[in-house]
Amino acid sequence: MDNVQHLNVVKVNEGDNKVGSLQNQKKDTIERERLLVLAAEQPWKPWQRSRSWIKECLVKVRRVMGCLVGLEWYCFAALGVLTAFLSFLMDLSVAKLLRAHQWLYSELEGHSLLQFLCWTLYPVSLCALSTSFSQRLSPSSAGSGVPEVRTMLSGVDMPHYRSLTNLFAKYVGLICTLAAGRTVFLGKVGPFVHLSTMVGDYLNRLYTVLRGKKEEKTEGAMMVVAAAVGVASCFGAPVSGVLFSVEVMSSHFALRDYCPCFFAAACGALTFRLFSVWSGEQETLLALFQTSYSDDLPFYPLEILMFIIVGLLCGACSCVYLFCHRWILRFIKTNKMLIKVLATEKALYSAMLVFLLASLTFPLSAGQYMASELTMKQLLSSLLDNRHWTSQNQNASVVPQPQLCPWPEWCPSGNPHLTLAIFLVMKLWMLVLACTLPLPAGYFMPVFIYGAAIGRLVGEGLAYVSLNVISLDQDRNPINPGGYALAGAAAFSGAVTHTLSPALLALELTGQSTHATPILLATLVANALARSGQRPSFYDALSISKKLPHLPSLHKAFPKLSSVPIGKVLSSGWPVLERAAGPSEVQQVLNTSCQTQIPVVDTLGSQILLGSLNRSDLHTFLCHNHSKVLKKQLGDLCSIQPVSVQLSPDTTVQEAHGVLSLLFGESLFVTEKGRLSGVVTWPEMKRMMEDLSDDL
Amino acid sequence: MDNVQHLNVVKVNEGDNKVGSLQNQKKDTIERERLLVLAAEQPWKPWQRSRSWIKECLVKVRRVMGCLVGLEWYCFAALGVLTAFLSFLMDLSVAKLLRAHQWLYSELEGHSLLQFLCWTLYPVSLCALSTSFSQRLSPSSAGSGVPEVRTMLSGVDMPHYRSLTNLFAKYVGLICTLAAGRTVFLGKVGPFVHLSTMVGDYLNRLYTVLRGKKEEKTEGAMMVVAAAVGVASCFGAPVSGVLFSVEVMSSHFALRDYCPCFFAAACGALTFRLFSVWSGEQETLLALFQTSYSDDLPFYPLEILMFIIVGLLCGACSCVYLFCHRWILRFIKTNKMLIKVLATEKALYSAMLVFLLASLTFPLSAGQYMASELTMKQLLSSLLDNRHWTSQNQNASVVPQPQLCPWPEWCPSGNPHLTLAIFLVMKLWMLVLACTLPLPAGYFMPVFIYGAAIGRLVGEGLAYVSLNVISLDQDRNPINPGGYALAGAAAFSGAVTHTLSPALLALELTGQSTHATPILLATLVANALARSGQRPSFYDALSISKKLPHLPSLHKAFPKLSSVPIGKVLSSGWPVLERAAGPSEVQQVLNTSCQTQIPVVDTLGSQILLGSLNRSDLHTFLCHNHSKVLKKQLGDLCSIQPVSVQLSPDTTVQEAHGVLSLLFGESLFVTEKGRLSGVVTWPEMKRMMEDLSDDL
Repeated sequence: MDNVQHLNVVKVNEGDNKVGSLQNQKKDTIERERLLVLAAEQPWKPWQRSRSWIKECLVKVRRVMGCLVGLEWYCFAALGVLTAFLSFLMDLSVAKLLRAHQWLYSELEGHSLLQFLCWTLYPVSLCALSTSFSQRLSPSSAGSGVPEVRTMLSGVDMPHYRSLTNLFAKYVGLICTLAAGRTVFLGKVGPFVHLSTMVGDYLNRLYTVLRGKKEEKTEGAMMVVAAAVGVASCFGAPVSGVLFSVEVMSSHFALRDYCPCFFAAACGALTFRLFSVWSGEQETLLALFQTSYSDDLPFYPLEILMFIIVGLLCGACSCVYLFCHRWILRFIKTNKMLIKVLATEKALYSAMLVFLLASLTFPLSAGQYMASELTMKQLLSSLLDNRHWTSQNQNASVVPQPQLCPWPEWCPSGNPHLTLAIFLVMKLWMLVLACTLPLPAGYFMPVFIYGAAIGRLVGEGLAYVSLNVISLDQDRNPINPGGYALAGAAAFSGAVTHTLSPALLALELTGQSTHATPILLATLVANALARSGQRPSFYDALSISKKLPHLPSLHKAFPKLSSVPIGKVLSSGWPVLERAAGPSEVQQVLNTSCQTQIPVVDTLGSQILLGSLNRSDLHTFLCHNHSKVLKKQLGDLCSIQPVSVQLSPDTTVQEAHGVLSLLFGESLFVTEKGRLSGVVTWPEMKRMMEDLSDDL
Repeated sequence: MDNVQHLNVVKVNEGDNKVGSLQNQKKDTIERERLLVLAAEQPWKPWQRSRSWIKECLVKVRRVMGCLVGLEWYCFAALGVLTAFLSFLMDLSVAKLLRAHQWLYSELEGHSLLQFLCWTLYPVSLCALSTSFSQRLSPSSAGSGVPEVRTMLSGVDMPHYRSLTNLFAKYVGLICTLAAGRTVFLGKVGPFVHLSTMVGDYLNRLYTVLRGKKEEKTEGAMMVVAAAVGVASCFGAPVSGVLFSVEVMSSHFALRDYCPCFFAAACGALTFRLFSVWSGEQETLLALFQTSYSDDLPFYPLEILMFIIVGLLCGACSCVYLFCHRWILRFIKTNKMLIKVLATEKALYSAMLVFLLASLTFPLSAGQYMASELTMKQLLSSLLDNRHWTSQNQNASVVPQPQLCPWPEWCPSGNPHLTLAIFLVMKLWMLVLACTLPLPAGYFMPVFIYGAAIGRLVGEGLAYVSLNVISLDQDRNPINPGGYALAGAAAFSGAVTHTLSPALLALELTGQSTHATPILLATLVANALARSGQRPSFYDALSISKKLPHLPSLHKAFPKLSSVPIGKVLSSGWPVLERAAGPSEVQQVLNTSCQTQIPVVDTLGSQILLGSLNRSDLHTFLCHNHSKVLKKQLGDLCSIQPVSVQLSPDTTVQEAHGVLSLLFGESLFVTEKGRLSGVVTWPEMKRMMEDLSDDL
């Protein structure tokens, strides 16, 4: 076997020595031979010849593809297309499950008890299934996933959050959660960002196999791109996907990821919309919640003040919501009974909670005042509708006509304002409760709808006042409550997540750009209110509660943390080699440590840092020393790579984190007056952050 | 006088010692007293009492404003509002000047020679005025300004590009250039980004005065925000302004600038649109080039392929255009006669060139085949129009009706395709020539219109084919050539500038989001084609031609540049202090150097770096040593600030540039085995880049 490999190496070397146009052809031949050799190496595998033929074809395809653009671009495109396909498939399954529930519920018309059981037990069983399935397969698949993605984007590696098992558990669990839609009131964006990351990680591994070497840069880029693709292929909104990707970065967005982000997001959005065309849902590529507001006079200039007030209101509501959310996160972690239940009987907890939520939303009792018969999509469509829900102008000159409300679910008693108010009060605490469910679920969409309801309430009120009090000319230019709902949705979701991309998302989701400026203003105002006083955002609170090593979140909880000098928290006992080290020392270092870069110092006594060596260099050194009789020193054989950036022990943890994440390096050396005093790597940084957050 | 100041210091100290709620009141009183003292110090200035009263009021206002949000946010808002005001004022003046020209031209109807003179001499005199005015006042006000802004954003300070004189010269010059609109075919975006930077710089200086201390961070943020505001207040397009701001950064976009960018851009866009409402132009806040494409079926799904072809075509055209542009830049720099003319007679050169362009576009001769009677705004509106320019379906069953072309300027011979083709061929080289004019002018809008013409040609051709060859059902869903024009505009301008934000700009400019996905795809494809082979973009070519110290541009021209180790290009002879330095050495260093941070080493012999000291520390040291009899050493009195990040001489210039721009530091120390071997500052970096580009 060794001979065959040796031959192979010789052939590859031969190929490398030749120059000119023949080189590629030569390489191809060698590759083909290598495949045959590999096939011969594994005689126990079936269909030797066909397998090698397929592999040969793949190599050819790869060469042709590589001629056009870099291989990574195919990966980005594949990421977009795959995620969009997953998103479409999920929407399809969820729609079928929802229709089944709807059918069963309507079949039982007249039997209130049976209807109640159908209304409650269907989501209960789905959520219990979702919980137990995801928890059994991969406990890290529960929740939104955005806090974990943010942490991974800041540079900390968390492999169990990116495994294929996790992908499967999250995907199936999320379908169940969404199918319980109306009652648990949860969404899919967050998990899709996470799912997209997992697909991206898988594609990156494929890319590494194809390229034959690992590239740190592509891995980082793939993560950033995946975050954009997640949002883009969930809503068919490419630009807000990219903005979301910019926002989830911890401190800086690298420009080299900008084009890949746009490209993959465009691929994702295009595929997602094309699927809906092919499935016959739409005739062409339209926005997901296409609205048709008037282009001539979408709003009066003075209404901008009202939009700003909506923003302020949403900002204030977001503070209440975030406070409740933080409170319940603390309560779950401190209440002894809940700790016990959640440790062993997660499915039971889910089932009980969902039963409570479902009984409250039962349409024949309290549910009728919460429009609970509408699905999430219908809810949003109804709230963004530009038709008025209230009755017409009651002018004395005009005979008052009893106009029908376009959405009877919102007007059970003829008064939509009351229904909206009840909806807002009830859904607030129900949503906070639903956020504690240990199953895969997104928290963005419910917040978006909640914000739309706030905006709608203001808009409907204003429309009512303008018609019945000020008596504006309603036939020409009525006030559009849908615009307020859109502004409210963007402002509230932006304030809860401390982001601005929902403003653009609202535009892309509705294909409506008439309200761009007021929506942006409302979102800015709401954000300003929500961010005042360094309060943590929704995702920050989750990060802190889960003790994730995400520096910006930790910084909000413990402001002192970032000013800690790194010298105080550096661990000692790093493997160090001296210039004059022999094979035995090198062997020992290779055995005891698993670092990729080993620092080399002048002498062990002086500890003056000269540079670093990779593990591969050390292996080469050992090989050379084995083959030759004359034993040489490390410094004579290997060229020590100089260290371009060094830190001092007085550098703060935050600065070190920034430099580490920006330089795309694996390790940074800390020196004091030229002497090595420590090494900062990502695992080390993770440990530091965990220690610090434990201490504080 | 000294006594008064001493008293003042004592009082401030008193104020600092008190705690609690009284502190603010105390501070206020002290501030008031300080103002009175200051007023007394300058007895030659008039109205002592009223001036101090005004200052007092200002202090109060500042305190109230500071309570709400940080002062910098007012600066960001002011930046947006001021730039939008400047933009609106410019539009107003240009419109008046254009109308004057139009009036004069139409009054001379029937006198061809006089009309020719009016057509040519009006822009000639305006451009000559623009050139001589801007060149006399501030030669750096010529051109677009975007290359300079990019260079400043990468960290290099270029104060003469940000002076108020420059602002004035650029503003007035730009009005003249734009008033010569139709003939020279230049725009206003680029200069507006530059103008916004100057306004930002002025506001930043104001902020520094108000805060009483200089902050590096605000200065950087103000520049980034200004870039966003420039685009936003030019077109009323906030989001594409922010994306533009992300794109002009050299390698990383800092997240801390994200919210300020959005805030200022929203303020700018809102103000710009409100002005047009207040001036009676529009009834409410609408997009600048509002279009009304069909919402039901904006395009057939198969048309996406055509949009991609438009993208490819635009990419190819952009390569031709950029090649011509690079050629003419080289030609101007090498042709001896032109060098001589441009060195002394810039206004003459402008006049001659504009006369040539104007004679070619004279509407009674060749100009009629280039739609030269339309202004820039009308050109864009006509190209984006969704009505067909060609005649109706020639079905046998329908009686062919001679339909009038909605834009007769485009159909002088009844065939708009020919006019569009002539327009494209002629404007290409005319635009390349116009780019050499030494006056303030933007090059984005002409490129945007040119791209729209490419797209329109494809769209009109497709519409013609679909009606007369395939015989599609035109009444229901005709093919919309305006959509192709929009995609072409975004794709071509994106390809020329190597950016993606034009895709979003096209949407915000027209308020049309139905075509979002195809426009984005076309822009991506065009960009891929234009960027292949590491060709420099339009702005890169200008940067290289002007020898600006902008690393990413230089990198494209001389790829080897960035791998040069910094140790090779470091200059020697930096002021260094040793730990044991006495007052005389300190005084000498203060006299000979102007650095803000002075490195401190162990001994001058060992050169082991200990840290650095600010100039202010050194001044304090000198004061102490003056007042005391016992002479102390530097290390005993001052606490030496440790250096958090050090570079090694093997760091490449590109890495050093990256670290310097990311750390917001003024200087980085280069050490080798702990010994100081050099200092990297921004002026030093600038010198290095200039030297390197000269060498290569």
